[in-house]
Amino acid sequence: MNTTEMIETPQELWNLIRKDEYLKSTAGVALGYLQTNLVPLPQEYAFDFLLFCQRNPKPCPILEVMEPGEFEPKILAKGADIRTDVPFYRIYENGELKSETKNILDYWQDDLVSFLIGCSFTFETAMLNADIPLRHIEQDTTVPMYITNIDTKPAGKFSGPTVVSMRPIHKENLVRAVQVTSRFPGTHGAPIHIGEPGEIGIQDINTPDFGEKSEIKDNEIPVFWACGVTPQAVALKSKPPIMITHSPGYMFVTSTRDESVAVI
Amino acid sequence: MNTTEMIETPQELWNLIRKDEYLKSTAGVALGYLQTNLVPLPQEYAFDFLLFCQRNPKPCPILEVMEPGEFEPKILAKGADIRTDVPFYRIYENGELKSETKNILDYWQDDLVSFLIGCSFTFETAMLNADIPLRHIEQDTTVPMYITNIDTKPAGKFSGPTVVSMRPIHKENLVRAVQVTSRFPGTHGAPIHIGEPGEIGIQDINTPDFGEKSEIKDNEIPVFWACGVTPQAVALKSKPPIMITHSPGYMFVTSTRDESVAVI
Repeated sequence: MNTTEMIETPQELWNLIRKDEYLKSTAGVALGYLQTNLVPLPQEYAFDFLLFCQRNPKPCPILEVMEPGEFEPKILAKGADIRTDVPFYRIYENGELKSETKNILDYWQDDLVSFLIGCSFTFETAMLNADIPLRHIEQDTTVPMYITNIDTKPAGKFSGPTVVSMRPIHKENLVRAVQVTSRFPGTHGAPIHIGEPGEIGIQDINTPDFGEKSEIKDNEIPVFWACGVTPQAVALKSKPPIMITHSPGYMFVTSTRDESVAVI
Repeated sequence: MNTTEMIETPQELWNLIRKDEYLKSTAGVALGYLQTNLVPLPQEYAFDFLLFCQRNPKPCPILEVMEPGEFEPKILAKGADIRTDVPFYRIYENGELKSETKNILDYWQDDLVSFLIGCSFTFETAMLNADIPLRHIEQDTTVPMYITNIDTKPAGKFSGPTVVSMRPIHKENLVRAVQVTSRFPGTHGAPIHIGEPGEIGIQDINTPDFGEKSEIKDNEIPVFWACGVTPQAVALKSKPPIMITHSPGYMFVTSTRDESVAVI
């Protein structure tokens, strides 16, 4: 009943998650629907965070911001409840991880402003559809992520380095990979660096800061995209009294199609 | 000395404006550089306005938001001063036009948050470069603008209808006009309606709500783009104690190239 393959609509998925019958990563589920990072933050942090995201659209592509206290994403996912419809959540207090929970009903506050931020699952689906293989999917590992020397543009309380994800791309697929991901600025968009890890401050490509190593084979070039870990890392650095996020890989699945956020 | 044709750089233009030696529309000046709408608003309105723009990117494409009290646009126009470098400003108090001034030094407040919003001059230059003629430029009139029945997505204090501009496009140029403007989501992007004024609530195409009539000739189709008058109209409706804007047609010229905000 709850195998990933059989879940075709977001509504089915939300229902299963609410009943604690779906407790896996959302990779590959309800394929073609936009998945997002979730960040509810206290209202007093909301303006600075929104401004930070506006200034740094590649790591922080905002897809929806909900009114204070609202838990139904009226634009991207009518009928959903972000307090219950994500398989796992992380609760941070003053910048420290306190617990991981299946819903956030007990942690909800009327002053929380929830941000839905684009996720690379969208452009990875587009690359696979264009016959561009992705090593971390072939090898069933987590994509390697690195803290770079590329500073984000600060805003109010928020500042810090850009985190990137790396995918080895065969040189014959390089142009197509840039084209395909450029169509999706709402989910990190085009790469921010191609080729030289050292130039963006990465000492050892085989030792990622997050995720797992991806082997780079002959005729493959390391290609780097801005990563959704950036806004989360930057927000935690400011130590808000409470901040909630989805657990990594356990995204919020909207009822909006990937293609609806493509630019052309 | 101060003829439009001779002014090639934004820096030259800013200097002339500061000395009250440039008092004309900025259309066609420093060609190829991004021009923007300017909206300084009190900080207490800034979050709702930023959220409104985030939810309505076609009429309200934000290019830069400055920190409270800042008057140098550090991202798009280093060295400029938005208090002096626009030829004419309008001062609104409680939603009503109070005066038009050559600078806003006397009106400046440390709690003003300034928004720079994309302007259709950018995509019009791109259309002219693609040999798509524009009637209002041929006839030296102001582009016709209409209040539609397309509601914006409200945010906090801000709500209201979408205002559109109309350009008659020959049917042979229709596809190219969509393609060219789609490259510039940061300056209103692709059209939001093609062909039937009545369907978006426009009673009489020959009686625009703002600007002047544009004749629609044989084999031409009326094409509608979301218009930067929308955020201004919506903000004034909320009657902030003070709100400043550029005067229509007298834009802020940045030192950033149009092409740098194209998506591909």
